[in-house]
Amino acid sequence: MPAAVQQHIPYSFLDDYSEAAHPALLSALLTSSTTQQSSYGQDTLSSDARRLLREQINLNDSQVDIHFVPSGTAANLICIAACLRPYEAVLTPETGHIVGKEAGAIEVAAGHKTIIVPGTVRGKMVPGQLVRTVQRNQFFPHAAKPRLVYISNATELGTVYSKSELRALSAVCKQLGLLLMMDGARIGVAVASSAHPEDERPTLADIAELTDIFWIGGTKMGALLGEAVVVKKTLPYADDFVFHVKQHGALLAKSRVMGCQFAELFRDGLYFQLARHANDMAARLADNFVELGYALYPDDRVETNQVFVLLPEELIQDLQERFQFYVWDSLDDGRSVVRVVTSWATDPMEVDKFNAFVRQWTI
Amino acid sequence: MPAAVQQHIPYSFLDDYSEAAHPALLSALLTSSTTQQSSYGQDTLSSDARRLLREQINLNDSQVDIHFVPSGTAANLICIAACLRPYEAVLTPETGHIVGKEAGAIEVAAGHKTIIVPGTVRGKMVPGQLVRTVQRNQFFPHAAKPRLVYISNATELGTVYSKSELRALSAVCKQLGLLLMMDGARIGVAVASSAHPEDERPTLADIAELTDIFWIGGTKMGALLGEAVVVKKTLPYADDFVFHVKQHGALLAKSRVMGCQFAELFRDGLYFQLARHANDMAARLADNFVELGYALYPDDRVETNQVFVLLPEELIQDLQERFQFYVWDSLDDGRSVVRVVTSWATDPMEVDKFNAFVRQWTI
Amino acid sequence: MPAAVQQHIPYSFLDDYSEAAHPALLSALLTSSTTQQSSYGQDTLSSDARRLLREQINLNDSQVDIHFVPSGTAANLICIAACLRPYEAVLTPETGHIVGKEAGAIEVAAGHKTIIVPGTVRGKMVPGQLVRTVQRNQFFPHAAKPRLVYISNATELGTVYSKSELRALSAVCKQLGLLLMMDGARIGVAVASSAHPEDERPTLADIAELTDIFWIGGTKMGALLGEAVVVKKTLPYADDFVFHVKQHGALLAKSRVMGCQFAELFRDGLYFQLARHANDMAARLADNFVELGYALYPDDRVETNQVFVLLPEELIQDLQERFQFYVWDSLDDGRSVVRVVTSWATDPMEVDKFNAFVRQWTI
Amino acid sequence: MPAAVQQHIPYSFLDDYSEAAHPALLSALLTSSTTQQSSYGQDTLSSDARRLLREQINLNDSQVDIHFVPSGTAANLICIAACLRPYEAVLTPETGHIVGKEAGAIEVAAGHKTIIVPGTVRGKMVPGQLVRTVQRNQFFPHAAKPRLVYISNATELGTVYSKSELRALSAVCKQLGLLLMMDGARIGVAVASSAHPEDERPTLADIAELTDIFWIGGTKMGALLGEAVVVKKTLPYADDFVFHVKQHGALLAKSRVMGCQFAELFRDGLYFQLARHANDMAARLADNFVELGYALYPDDRVETNQVFVLLPEELIQDLQERFQFYVWDSLDDGRSVVRVVTSWATDPMEVDKFNAFVRQWTI
Repeated sequence: MPAAVQQHIPYSFLDDYSEAAHPALLSALLTSSTTQQSSYGQDTLSSDARRLLREQINLNDSQVDIHFVPSGTAANLICIAACLRPYEAVLTPETGHIVGKEAGAIEVAAGHKTIIVPGTVRGKMVPGQLVRTVQRNQFFPHAAKPRLVYISNATELGTVYSKSELRALSAVCKQLGLLLMMDGARIGVAVASSAHPEDERPTLADIAELTDIFWIGGTKMGALLGEAVVVKKTLPYADDFVFHVKQHGALLAKSRVMGCQFAELFRDGLYFQLARHANDMAARLADNFVELGYALYPDDRVETNQVFVLLPEELIQDLQERFQFYVWDSLDDGRSVVRVVTSWATDPMEVDKFNAFVRQWTI
Repeated sequence: MPAAVQQHIPYSFLDDYSEAAHPALLSALLTSSTTQQSSYGQDTLSSDARRLLREQINLNDSQVDIHFVPSGTAANLICIAACLRPYEAVLTPETGHIVGKEAGAIEVAAGHKTIIVPGTVRGKMVPGQLVRTVQRNQFFPHAAKPRLVYISNATELGTVYSKSELRALSAVCKQLGLLLMMDGARIGVAVASSAHPEDERPTLADIAELTDIFWIGGTKMGALLGEAVVVKKTLPYADDFVFHVKQHGALLAKSRVMGCQFAELFRDGLYFQLARHANDMAARLADNFVELGYALYPDDRVETNQVFVLLPEELIQDLQERFQFYVWDSLDDGRSVVRVVTSWATDPMEVDKFNAFVRQWTI
Repeated sequence: MPAAVQQHIPYSFLDDYSEAAHPALLSALLTSSTTQQSSYGQDTLSSDARRLLREQINLNDSQVDIHFVPSGTAANLICIAACLRPYEAVLTPETGHIVGKEAGAIEVAAGHKTIIVPGTVRGKMVPGQLVRTVQRNQFFPHAAKPRLVYISNATELGTVYSKSELRALSAVCKQLGLLLMMDGARIGVAVASSAHPEDERPTLADIAELTDIFWIGGTKMGALLGEAVVVKKTLPYADDFVFHVKQHGALLAKSRVMGCQFAELFRDGLYFQLARHANDMAARLADNFVELGYALYPDDRVETNQVFVLLPEELIQDLQERFQFYVWDSLDDGRSVVRVVTSWATDPMEVDKFNAFVRQWTI
Repeated sequence: MPAAVQQHIPYSFLDDYSEAAHPALLSALLTSSTTQQSSYGQDTLSSDARRLLREQINLNDSQVDIHFVPSGTAANLICIAACLRPYEAVLTPETGHIVGKEAGAIEVAAGHKTIIVPGTVRGKMVPGQLVRTVQRNQFFPHAAKPRLVYISNATELGTVYSKSELRALSAVCKQLGLLLMMDGARIGVAVASSAHPEDERPTLADIAELTDIFWIGGTKMGALLGEAVVVKKTLPYADDFVFHVKQHGALLAKSRVMGCQFAELFRDGLYFQLARHANDMAARLADNFVELGYALYPDDRVETNQVFVLLPEELIQDLQERFQFYVWDSLDDGRSVVRVVTSWATDPMEVDKFNAFVRQWTI
C-alpha cells in the first residue's frame, strides 16, 4: 500500500490540483491501455478528443488544429514561441502567470520579451491601458514590437471576462494588428461561472471566435495532466505548430494519455459539470463568510473557484490546524487576505466542516 | 466505448510505446488518486520513488537529486541546459537522438551547440574519437568549448556499453575536464541485456558512479509518461536544477503521476522484469531470423529490444499485411533493413505468429 | 567630396553621437594604421588602452579584465549573458536602457528575464525598492531568481549617483547575494559632474570598487565606436568572458580600432576634458533657461549633458527652424518637455546662438 | 607615440586584417567627421554607400535593403536569425565559418540548428550532397526543418564558385524551397578572382540575383570594420531586418563610420582594385612555390588570396624567423601545410623578400 494513503494531513484548499484524476478518466485510461496506438499525437484517442473539442468550439479541422501538451507553462511558452518573431513582444497584465510564476520560460525558453500592461481592473486587462502601452512601445527599431496580447480566463484573481469585455479587447487587438491569446488553465470555471448575465457569458466557441490561440486546461479540471491548445489556422505558420511542441519537449510519445482524458472530459459534458462543482463549492464558502460579516477581497464577489477573504489572524491560525490554504497578504490591522481554492474534487462535507468551523469560531 | 478499441490494425512492432501502461502502474494511480498530495514534485509518492531509485543507484540524498520530467526530449534538453554555460558545447555521436530527432531542442530550447563525434563503433562512442574531436575544437575563443559528452544506453542501434567501455569513456572525460551524460530512454533493456559477460554488465549503480548526470526512462518501460533524471550534487549549481525543469514547462503540477509510476516500477523489480521480457522477445525474433538464414544488421548480435535484419522486399511486403514495423534502409540487391521492436508489452503469441509467418514464407 | 558635407541642416542638439570622432583619435588611427597588429583584441594598442584604464580604476590585471565591444547594446547584453545562469534575472529601473530601447536584446539575445524595480528617485534606483522587489520575487522554483542589478550612470534622465548612493546600493547587493552592474554609456559626464559635493563624486576607481562589472562608454565621448567593459575577476567564469563577446559577434578582428581610441582618450585625460565640455555646455543652456524663467524638468538641476526644460509650444516651433532637439512629452497647458543634449563636440557658438534665440524670443 | 609603432615583429602573412584601413577611407572619415549626421544608419554617408552598392548589384531600393554591421560573425548570426523560424535549420559545409569559428553564435545567439552538408569539393558545397542531406532530414516533426543554405565565397579554403556552380546551387534551393545565403567576408577576392573563365565569374550583381541574402565584407578589404548585408525584399519580414540588427547589438549609433568607408570603397572601384592586389600578391607567392617544386594544397591552384602549400619543417622554421603565417596541418612525412595570406595591404617588397628567402633556402 503506497505510503501516501496512510498519511493524515489537514484537508487542502491550497489549489485545484491536489488530487490526481477523476475516476472516469482513470477508467478510460485503463480500458484503452492495452490497445496499440500510434505515437506523438497520431492516435485515435486524441482524434476523438479533437473531434469533441471542435464540436465545442464550433470550428472544423480546416479552421483549427488542436495539440495536447503536458503543462500550462509548456502551453504558454509554446504558444508564444509559435506566434512571434524574435523581435516581437507579448503584452501581459502584471498578474499574468507568465510574469512571475514561470521562472522566465517566456524570455529564456521561448525567447521573447514581455511587456507589462499596467492598470488591470479586477485582474483583467482593460483596452485603454493596452492601447497606451502599445503606443509607448513604438520606437522603431529600438523597442521590441508589441504583437501578442496574453490574458488568462479565469484570471489569477479568479475573475472572469464578460463577452463584451472580450469583444472589446479582441476589437482593439485587430485594430492595432495584435494577436490575442488566452491562457485557459482555469477556462473551465470561467465558462461555468455565473458572474455575468447569461448573454454575457462567453462559451468556448465565443472564445475561439474572439482569440487567435487559446488553451483548455485539463490539469486543473480532473485530468492527470494535459492542456489542449487550440490554434487557429489563420495564424502564420499554423501548420508548423507541432515543431514547437516537439522542440520544447512537450510532444509526448504517448500523447494518447492526454487524448484519452480529454475525450472523456468532453464526451458528455463532464468538464463543465466538474467546473460547476468547483464554483458551487466556492460560492458556499463565500456565502458563509459574507453571512458572518467577513469581507471578501478585492470586493464582494467570488466569480469562480477561488475565494479571497479578509480574516483575523487568530481565526487563520485556528483554521490552519484543520485545513490547508494560502495566506496571500497581511494588512496592518491584524487581518490577512486568505485564498481558499475549491476544485472538481472538493469534498462538500469538508466545505461544510470548514464553514461550521468559521461559524462556531465567530459566533 | 472508445473508438480505438474497435479498430482492427496489424500488430505493431514499430516501437516500444504503442501501449499505454502496465496494469500495476494504472492500479497504483487509481488507488492513490483521491489522496491529496503536494504539487510540483513535493508529494509523498515521488518521495517514495526517489527513495527506491536511490537504493538502486546506491547513493543517498546528499549525493544525488532525482527529478521527474514528462518526456525524453525534455530530459535531454534540461540536462544539457543545466550542465552548460552558453559557450559550452555538447559532444554526441552522429546517431544521437539529440542530433536529428529532437527538432533542434538542444540548440534552440536549451541554447547550446552540438558537436558530432564521428566514427562510432556499433553506435557507441569510442574514446579515441572523442579525444580527437575535443582536440579539433580547441580554438579559444572562436570555437565553442567542448564540455559535456552525451551518450545513449542502449544506443539508437540497440547496442549496450560494457562496464569497461563506460569506464574508459568516463576516464577520458575526467582527464579532459568533460562531464558525462547518459540518455536512458532505453536504460532498462540496457541493464537487463546479456550482451556482455556478467561482470561487464553495468548496473544502475555503476552508471550513477561513472556519469555526472543520467536519466532512467519510464515511457518506454511501461509508464504512461515520465523519465527520472539523476543529478549528482557534484555538478555545479545542482541545487538549482529544478529551475530548469520549471523554465522548460516540465515541472508538472501533478508530478505525483510520475512518482507513483516510478515507485511501482522499482518497488519490487518490475522495471527489470519488463526489460527482460522485451529483450527475450527480441531474442526470440532474432533467433528465428538467424535460423532461417537471414542476416542481422549491422552484425549477428541483438543486444536489447531492437532487431535489425536484412529481408527480401517480397517478404517485407507480405509481412506488412499482418505486422507493423519500420523499413530502415534499402539496399541495391532487393533487400532492405527492417527494424522490429519489442517491448515490455509485446505479446509472445504475436511474436510466435510473426516467426511462424517468416518461417512458412521461407521454407 | 562626400554629399554629407554639402548638406545644410539645423544644428543638432538631438544626441551626443552626431559627430564622428575627436581629431586626436582619428589622428592616432591614421598614425598607427599601417602597423601590423594581432587581431581579436591581442594587439598592442589595446594593451596600451587596457593599461591606461587599469591605472584609472586602480586595479591590476590579476584583478580585472578589460574587453572592447562595438556598441552599448552589445556591452549590456554580453555583460548580462556572462553574469547569469538561464533562470537568473536582471533587476532594472523602469527607465533602464535595456527595458525599452534595446529591442529585446536582453531577453532574446542574452536569454534572461528582466524584472522592473519601480519607484526610482530622479531616475536612480533606491535600495529600499530593490529590497522589496527582490522579496516579491522569491518563489522557488516558480519565479526567476533575482541575481544582477543593472543601473546606468549617468541615468537616462541625466542624473548621477553620489558616492553614498552607490555605496548603499552596493551594500544591499552584497547583503542579498546580488551582483551589481553599471551601464556606463555616459559614465564620462557622470564622473565629470559637479552635481554632488566633491567628496561625494565617484571616480572610475570608486565605481570599479563598488560594482562587479561595468563599462566605460566611448561612442558618446568622442570615439567612432567602442565601449570598454571592465570585468572583475571575482565574477564566476570571468576568464571565459571573451567567449560571450565572440558568440555575440562583438569580437572585432580589428579590435585595435577601439584600443587605439581608448588609449588616446585616457593617455592624458582627454576623456574627462571632453566630458567637462559637454557638461559645461549643458550648464550654459540651463542657466539661460532658468534666468529667463523657464522651468527645468524634473526639477531645477542639470547634472550632466542633458537639459530637460518646459517650453511653450510656440517657442519650440520657432526654435526647431534653427536647431534640432527632441520633444519628450506634452503637457496639457500648452507646454512641452524638451530634451537638449550637448556633447564633447558641441560648438560653444551654437550654444550661444541657441541661448540668444531663446532670450530674444522671450524678452 | 603609440607603443605599437616602435615594436619590431616579423612581417605578417597571418591574415587579411593585420592593418587598420586604407588611407583613402581614413581620409574620408577625417573629412566628414565634424559634420553632424543622423544616427543608427539614417545618415547621408550610409545613404551614399547604399546607392553605390545598389548600382553594383543592379537592384533598386524597392528590391533590396542594405544594412551595415560591425563584424562577420554579427552578419552571419543576424542573417540567419532573420531568415529562419525557431524550428528551421541552416545547412552548411563542414568547413563553414559558422561551424567551428563562431563560438556557437548560430545556435546560441541566433537560436538555430546547423546541419552539416558533407562531401564538399575543394571547399565548395555540391548540389547532390545538398539534396541528399535535405532528404535525410525529412522527419516531421522530429527533425529540424532544413530551410537556409549557407555558403562562403571565397570559401575558407580560398576557392571560388563559378557562375554555373552558383546557378546550380540556386536552382536546387528553389526546387527544394530553401533560401540561399552567401557569407561574403572575402567576396572581394572572389569576384576579382581569375580562377574561372571570364564568362564564369559571378559579379556582385550575379550573386545578388542568385542568392536571397548575402553580405559584402569590408573588414578584410581595407575598412576599419563593417560588413554590408544585402537583404532581398522578397524575403519574408525583410522590412523588419533592422530589428535583428538592433537586438544583437550591431546597430551602431555612428553607423556612418561604416557607411563612409563603404562609400569610399565603391565610389570608384577601390574595392575591386584592392581585391586584385591581394590576389596578385598571392599568385606571386604561389608561382614561386610551384617554380621551386613545392606542392600547393589541396591541388595546384590558388584562386584568391590564400596560399596553402606543403613545405618541409626545416624551411618552415627558418621562414618563421622572418615572417608570420599559420601552420595548418602536419603530415607524417616531415612536411606541413602552411597558409600564407595576402591582403589589400600586403607590401610587394615583403612578398619578394619572402620569395627570395624560399628560393635561396631551396636552391
